[in-house]
Amino acid sequence: MIVVMGVDPGVAHTGFGVVRVAGGSMSAVDGGVIEAPPGEPTEKRLARIHDELEQLIAWHEPAALALEDVYFGRNVRSAIGVGQARGVALLAAAKRGISCFDYTPQAVKTAVCGTGAAAKKQVQRMVGTLLGLPQPPESDHAADALAVAICHAAHAGTAAAIGRQLTGVGSA
Amino acid sequence: MIVVMGVDPGVAHTGFGVVRVAGGSMSAVDGGVIEAPPGEPTEKRLARIHDELEQLIAWHEPAALALEDVYFGRNVRSAIGVGQARGVALLAAAKRGISCFDYTPQAVKTAVCGTGAAAKKQVQRMVGTLLGLPQPPESDHAADALAVAICHAAHAGTAAAIGRQLTGVGSA
Repeated sequence: MIVVMGVDPGVAHTGFGVVRVAGGSMSAVDGGVIEAPPGEPTEKRLARIHDELEQLIAWHEPAALALEDVYFGRNVRSAIGVGQARGVALLAAAKRGISCFDYTPQAVKTAVCGTGAAAKKQVQRMVGTLLGLPQPPESDHAADALAVAICHAAHAGTAAAIGRQLTGVGSA
Repeated sequence: MIVVMGVDPGVAHTGFGVVRVAGGSMSAVDGGVIEAPPGEPTEKRLARIHDELEQLIAWHEPAALALEDVYFGRNVRSAIGVGQARGVALLAAAKRGISCFDYTPQAVKTAVCGTGAAAKKQVQRMVGTLLGLPQPPESDHAADALAVAICHAAHAGTAAAIGRQLTGVGSA
Protein backbone atom coordinates (compact mmCIF):
# COMPACT_ATOMS: atom_id res chain seq x y z
CA MET A 1 0.00 0.00 0.00
CA ILE A 2 1.17 3.50 -0.79
CA VAL A 3 -0.37 6.83 0.22
CA VAL A 4 0.48 9.93 -1.81
CA MET A 5 -0.53 13.52 -1.12
CA GLY A 6 -0.85 15.93 -4.01
CA VAL A 7 -0.84 19.68 -3.45
CA ASP A 8 -1.84 22.55 -5.73
CA PRO A 9 -0.43 25.53 -3.85
CA GLY A 10 -1.68 29.12 -3.91
CA VAL A 11 -1.81 31.93 -1.35
CA ALA A 12 -5.60 32.21 -1.65
CA HIS A 13 -6.60 28.58 -2.42
CA THR A 14 -4.43 25.53 -1.86
CA GLY A 15 -5.85 22.28 -3.18
CA PHE A 16 -4.93 18.99 -1.60
CA GLY A 17 -5.70 15.39 -2.45
CA VAL A 18 -4.71 12.13 -0.83
CA VAL A 19 -4.66 8.94 -2.87
CA ARG A 20 -4.11 5.38 -1.72
CA VAL A 21 -2.95 2.52 -3.93
CA ALA A 22 -3.51 -0.97 -2.56
CA GLY A 23 -3.66 -4.28 -4.40
CA GLY A 24 -3.53 -2.56 -7.78
CA SER A 25 -6.54 -0.33 -7.15
CA MET A 26 -6.48 3.38 -6.45
CA SER A 27 -8.82 5.31 -4.19
CA ALA A 28 -9.26 8.83 -2.84
CA VAL A 29 -8.72 9.12 0.90
CA ASP A 30 -9.17 12.86 1.23
CA GLY A 31 -9.36 16.00 -0.86
CA GLY A 32 -10.33 19.62 -0.57
CA VAL A 33 -9.20 23.21 -0.53
CA ILE A 34 -7.48 25.26 2.17
CA GLU A 35 -8.82 28.80 1.95
CA ALA A 36 -6.71 31.67 3.27
CA PRO A 37 -8.80 34.83 3.72
CA PRO A 38 -7.66 37.68 1.45
CA GLY A 39 -8.00 40.29 4.20
CA GLU A 40 -5.18 38.79 6.27
CA PRO A 41 -1.48 39.64 5.98
CA THR A 42 0.36 37.22 3.68
CA GLU A 43 2.46 35.76 6.50
CA LYS A 44 -0.70 34.75 8.40
CA ARG A 45 -2.23 33.23 5.28
CA LEU A 46 0.93 31.22 4.71
CA ALA A 47 0.90 30.09 8.34
CA ARG A 48 -2.66 28.85 7.90
CA ILE A 49 -1.74 26.88 4.74
CA HIS A 50 1.30 25.44 6.49
CA ASP A 51 -0.59 24.45 9.63
CA GLU A 52 -3.45 22.78 7.78
CA LEU A 53 -1.09 20.85 5.51
CA GLU A 54 0.96 19.85 8.55
CA GLN A 55 -2.17 18.40 10.17
CA LEU A 56 -3.19 16.59 6.98
CA ILE A 57 0.30 15.11 6.66
CA ALA A 58 0.31 14.00 10.30
CA TRP A 59 -3.11 12.45 9.80
CA HIS A 60 -2.57 10.63 6.50
CA GLU A 61 1.18 9.92 6.76
CA PRO A 62 1.78 10.00 2.99
CA ALA A 63 4.93 8.38 1.60
CA ALA A 64 5.45 11.31 -0.76
CA LEU A 65 4.24 14.79 -1.58
CA ALA A 66 3.63 15.50 -5.28
CA LEU A 67 3.32 18.95 -6.85
CA GLU A 68 2.78 20.17 -10.35
CA ASP A 69 5.62 22.07 -11.87
CA VAL A 70 4.40 25.65 -12.18
CA TYR A 71 6.96 27.38 -14.35
CA PHE A 72 4.65 27.83 -17.28
CA GLY A 73 2.00 30.37 -18.12
CA ARG A 74 2.66 32.66 -15.19
CA ASN A 75 3.90 36.14 -14.69
CA VAL A 76 6.56 36.97 -12.13
CA ARG A 77 4.10 38.38 -9.58
CA SER A 78 1.90 35.30 -9.53
CA ALA A 79 5.03 33.10 -9.56
CA ILE A 80 6.22 34.75 -6.32
CA GLY A 81 2.81 34.12 -4.75
CA VAL A 82 2.69 30.48 -5.78
CA GLY A 83 6.33 30.10 -4.76
CA GLN A 84 5.52 31.34 -1.26
CA ALA A 85 2.71 28.82 -0.88
CA ARG A 86 4.91 26.06 -2.34
CA GLY A 87 7.61 26.98 0.17
CA VAL A 88 5.40 26.40 3.21
CA ALA A 89 3.94 23.21 1.65
CA LEU A 90 7.44 21.79 1.04
CA LEU A 91 8.42 22.80 4.57
CA ALA A 92 5.46 20.92 6.06
CA ALA A 93 6.65 17.80 4.20
CA ALA A 94 10.32 18.29 5.14
CA LYS A 95 9.40 18.52 8.83
CA ARG A 96 8.06 14.95 8.61
CA GLY A 97 10.88 13.66 6.45
CA ILE A 98 8.62 13.23 3.42
CA SER A 99 10.20 13.53 -0.04
CA CYS A 100 8.68 15.91 -2.56
CA PHE A 101 8.29 15.33 -6.28
CA ASP A 102 7.59 17.69 -9.13
CA TYR A 103 5.71 16.73 -12.32
CA THR A 104 5.17 18.71 -15.49
CA PRO A 105 1.54 19.42 -16.46
CA GLN A 106 2.10 17.11 -19.46
CA ALA A 107 3.18 14.21 -17.24
CA VAL A 108 0.11 14.70 -15.04
CA LYS A 109 -2.29 14.84 -17.99
CA THR A 110 -0.69 11.79 -19.58
CA ALA A 111 -0.94 9.80 -16.34
CA VAL A 112 -4.59 10.73 -15.86
CA CYS A 113 -5.95 10.94 -19.43
CA GLY A 114 -3.40 9.16 -21.60
CA THR A 115 -2.49 12.34 -23.48
CA GLY A 116 -0.46 15.40 -22.51
CA ALA A 117 -2.89 17.56 -24.50
CA ALA A 118 -5.99 16.74 -22.41
CA ALA A 119 -8.32 19.62 -21.51
CA LYS A 120 -8.90 20.69 -17.89
CA LYS A 121 -12.46 19.31 -17.83
CA GLN A 122 -11.25 15.97 -19.17
CA VAL A 123 -8.64 15.74 -16.39
CA GLN A 124 -11.32 16.54 -13.82
CA ARG A 125 -13.65 13.81 -15.16
CA MET A 126 -10.87 11.21 -15.31
CA VAL A 127 -9.80 11.99 -11.75
CA GLY A 128 -13.35 11.09 -10.71
CA THR A 129 -13.35 7.94 -12.83
CA LEU A 130 -9.91 6.66 -11.75
CA LEU A 131 -10.71 7.18 -8.08
CA GLY A 132 -14.22 5.76 -8.33
CA LEU A 133 -15.85 8.96 -7.11
CA PRO A 134 -19.62 9.37 -7.59
CA GLN A 135 -18.83 12.60 -9.48
CA PRO A 136 -15.71 14.59 -10.45
CA PRO A 137 -14.28 16.86 -7.73
CA GLU A 138 -16.09 20.20 -7.71
CA SER A 139 -13.03 22.27 -6.99
CA ASP A 140 -10.38 22.74 -9.68
CA HIS A 141 -7.74 22.98 -6.98
CA ALA A 142 -8.72 19.70 -5.33
CA ALA A 143 -8.94 18.01 -8.76
CA ASP A 144 -5.46 19.27 -9.71
CA ALA A 145 -4.05 18.07 -6.40
CA LEU A 146 -5.65 14.62 -6.83
CA ALA A 147 -4.38 14.47 -10.44
CA VAL A 148 -0.75 15.05 -9.45
CA ALA A 149 -1.12 12.54 -6.60
CA ILE A 150 -2.47 9.97 -9.12
CA CYS A 151 0.46 10.78 -11.41
CA HIS A 152 2.96 10.06 -8.65
CA ALA A 153 1.10 6.99 -7.40
CA ALA A 154 0.86 5.55 -10.91
CA HIS A 155 4.57 5.92 -11.37
CA ALA A 156 5.64 5.32 -7.79
CA GLY A 157 7.74 2.34 -8.84
CA THR A 158 9.52 4.31 -11.49
CA ALA A 159 9.19 7.76 -9.95
CA ALA A 160 12.90 8.35 -10.19
CA ALA A 161 12.65 7.95 -13.96
CA ILE A 162 9.81 10.34 -14.73
CA GLY A 163 9.37 12.43 -11.59
CA ARG A 164 11.91 14.97 -10.70
CA GLN A 165 12.83 15.03 -7.05
CA LEU A 166 13.16 18.63 -6.04
CA THR A 167 16.94 18.82 -6.00
CA GLY A 168 18.13 22.24 -6.93
CA VAL A 169 14.77 23.30 -8.32
CA GLY A 170 14.22 27.02 -8.19
CA SER A 171 17.68 27.76 -6.86
CA ALA A 172 18.20 31.48 -6.40
CA MET B 1 14.31 51.20 21.07
CA ILE B 2 13.29 49.25 18.03
CA VAL B 3 14.83 46.11 16.53
CA VAL B 4 14.17 45.29 12.88
CA MET B 5 15.22 42.20 10.95
CA GLY B 6 15.78 42.44 7.22
CA VAL B 7 15.81 39.34 5.03
CA ASP B 8 17.02 38.82 1.46
CA PRO B 9 15.57 35.40 0.67
CA GLY B 10 16.91 32.83 -1.78
CA VAL B 11 16.95 29.03 -1.86
CA ALA B 12 20.76 28.95 -2.06
CA HIS B 13 21.70 32.08 -0.05
CA THR B 14 19.45 33.94 2.34
CA GLY B 15 20.87 37.17 3.72
CA PHE B 16 19.78 38.47 7.07
CA GLY B 17 20.51 41.66 9.00
CA VAL B 18 19.35 42.91 12.37
CA VAL B 19 19.35 46.63 13.09
CA ARG B 20 18.66 48.42 16.36
CA VAL B 21 17.55 52.03 16.68
CA ALA B 22 17.95 53.57 20.12
CA GLY B 23 18.15 57.22 21.10
CA GLY B 24 18.23 58.33 17.48
CA SER B 25 21.25 56.21 16.54
CA MET B 26 21.23 53.07 14.47
CA SER B 27 23.49 50.07 14.88
CA ALA B 28 23.92 46.58 13.46
CA VAL B 29 23.19 43.81 15.92
CA ASP B 30 23.71 40.85 13.60
CA GLY B 31 24.07 40.04 9.93
CA GLY B 32 25.13 37.20 7.69
CA VAL B 33 24.07 34.60 5.17
CA ILE B 34 22.27 31.30 5.60
CA GLU B 35 23.69 28.86 3.08
CA ALA B 36 21.56 25.93 1.91
CA PRO B 37 23.70 23.28 0.17
CA PRO B 38 22.75 22.82 -3.51
CA GLY B 39 23.02 19.02 -3.31
CA GLU B 40 20.05 18.73 -0.94
CA PRO B 41 16.38 18.42 -1.95
CA THR B 42 14.62 21.79 -2.04
CA GLU B 43 12.33 20.95 0.87
CA LYS B 44 15.35 20.30 3.12
CA ARG B 45 17.03 23.51 2.03
CA LEU B 46 13.85 25.42 2.83
CA ALA B 47 13.65 23.73 6.23
CA ARG B 48 17.21 24.85 6.96
CA ILE B 49 16.42 28.46 6.01
CA HIS B 50 13.25 28.37 8.09
CA ASP B 51 14.93 26.87 11.14
CA GLU B 52 17.86 29.29 11.12
CA LEU B 53 15.58 32.31 10.70
CA GLU B 54 13.34 30.98 13.45
CA GLN B 55 16.34 30.84 15.80
CA LEU B 56 17.50 34.33 14.83
CA ILE B 57 13.99 35.71 15.41
CA ALA B 58 13.76 33.98 18.80
CA TRP B 59 17.17 35.38 19.71
CA HIS B 60 16.75 38.99 18.55
CA GLU B 61 13.00 39.41 19.01
CA PRO B 62 12.60 41.95 16.21
CA ALA B 63 9.51 44.15 16.15
CA ALA B 64 9.19 43.68 12.39
CA LEU B 65 10.53 41.70 9.46
CA ALA B 66 11.36 43.71 6.34
CA LEU B 67 11.85 42.31 2.84
CA GLU B 68 12.62 43.82 -0.49
CA ASP B 69 9.91 43.56 -3.06
CA VAL B 70 11.24 41.14 -5.68
CA TYR B 71 8.83 41.45 -8.59
CA PHE B 72 11.30 43.12 -10.89
CA GLY B 73 14.08 41.81 -13.09
CA ARG B 74 13.31 38.15 -12.59
CA ASN B 75 12.15 35.32 -14.73
CA VAL B 76 9.35 33.01 -13.62
CA ARG B 77 11.68 30.16 -12.63
CA SER B 78 13.80 32.31 -10.33
CA ALA B 79 10.64 33.99 -8.99
CA ILE B 80 9.28 30.59 -7.87
CA GLY B 81 12.59 29.88 -6.12
CA VAL B 82 12.69 33.23 -4.33
CA GLY B 83 8.97 32.89 -3.55
CA GLN B 84 9.61 29.55 -1.83
CA ALA B 85 12.34 31.04 0.34
CA ARG B 86 10.15 34.10 1.08
CA GLY B 87 7.35 31.75 2.09
CA VAL B 88 9.37 30.04 4.82
CA ALA B 89 10.83 33.38 5.98
CA LEU B 90 7.35 34.91 6.32
CA LEU B 91 6.18 31.77 8.11
CA ALA B 92 9.02 32.04 10.66
CA ALA B 93 7.85 35.60 11.40
CA ALA B 94 4.16 34.67 11.52
CA LYS B 95 4.87 31.95 14.09
CA ARG B 96 6.15 34.63 16.48
CA GLY B 97 3.40 37.13 15.65
CA ILE B 98 5.82 39.47 13.88
CA SER B 99 4.45 41.68 11.10
CA CYS B 100 6.17 41.65 7.71
CA PHE B 101 6.76 44.64 5.45
CA ASP B 102 7.69 44.88 1.81
CA TYR B 103 9.72 47.75 0.30
CA THR B 104 10.49 48.49 -3.32
CA PRO B 105 14.18 48.55 -4.31
CA GLN B 106 13.73 52.30 -4.92
CA ALA B 107 12.46 52.91 -1.37
CA VAL B 108 15.40 50.96 0.06
CA LYS B 109 17.97 52.85 -2.03
CA THR B 110 16.39 56.18 -1.16
CA ALA B 111 16.39 55.39 2.56
CA VAL B 112 20.03 54.31 2.49
CA CYS B 113 21.61 56.58 -0.16
CA GLY B 114 19.14 59.43 -0.66
CA THR B 115 18.43 58.41 -4.25
CA GLY B 116 16.43 55.59 -5.79
CA ALA B 117 19.02 55.35 -8.57
CA ALA B 118 21.97 54.44 -6.31
CA ALA B 119 24.32 51.68 -7.51
CA LYS B 120 24.72 48.41 -5.60
CA LYS B 121 28.25 49.30 -4.39
CA GLN B 122 27.01 52.65 -3.13
CA VAL B 123 24.25 50.95 -1.11
CA GLN B 124 26.79 48.55 0.35
CA ARG B 125 29.12 51.40 1.38
CA MET B 126 26.29 53.46 2.91
CA VAL B 127 25.03 50.44 4.89
CA GLY B 128 28.51 50.29 6.46
CA THR B 129 28.55 54.04 7.11
CA LEU B 130 25.02 54.29 8.58
CA LEU B 131 25.62 51.36 10.91
CA GLY B 132 29.13 52.49 11.91
CA LEU B 133 30.75 49.28 10.67
CA PRO B 134 34.55 49.24 10.27
CA GLN B 135 33.95 48.24 6.62
CA PRO B 136 30.93 47.56 4.38
CA PRO B 137 29.41 44.05 4.69
CA GLU B 138 31.30 41.58 2.50
CA SER B 139 28.24 39.66 1.39
CA ASP B 140 25.78 41.24 -1.03
CA HIS B 141 22.97 39.26 0.60
CA ALA B 142 23.77 40.46 4.11
CA ALA B 143 24.15 44.04 2.82
CA ASP B 144 20.78 43.87 1.06
CA ALA B 145 19.14 42.49 4.20
CA LEU B 146 20.68 45.22 6.37
CA ALA B 147 19.61 47.86 3.81
CA VAL B 148 15.95 46.84 3.90
CA ALA B 149 16.10 46.69 7.72
CA ILE B 150 17.51 50.24 7.74
CA CYS B 151 14.74 51.30 5.37
CA HIS B 152 12.07 49.97 7.71
CA ALA B 153 13.79 51.30 10.85
CA ALA B 154 14.20 54.75 9.32
CA HIS B 155 10.51 54.88 8.52
CA ALA B 156 9.24 52.88 11.46
CA GLY B 157 7.14 55.82 12.61
CA THR B 158 5.58 56.22 9.22
CA ALA B 159 5.89 52.65 7.99
CA ALA B 160 2.22 52.51 7.19
CA ALA B 161 2.71 55.39 4.79
CA ILE B 162 5.62 54.11 2.72
CA GLY B 163 5.91 50.44 3.57
CA ARG B 164 3.40 48.03 2.29
CA GLN B 165 2.26 45.50 4.81
CA LEU B 166 1.98 42.19 3.05
CA THR B 167 -1.79 42.11 2.77
CA GLY B 168 -2.82 40.31 -0.33
CA VAL B 169 0.63 40.44 -1.88
CA GLY B 170 1.26 37.67 -4.34
CA SER B 171 -2.26 36.31 -4.10
CA ALA B 172 -2.72 33.33 -6.32
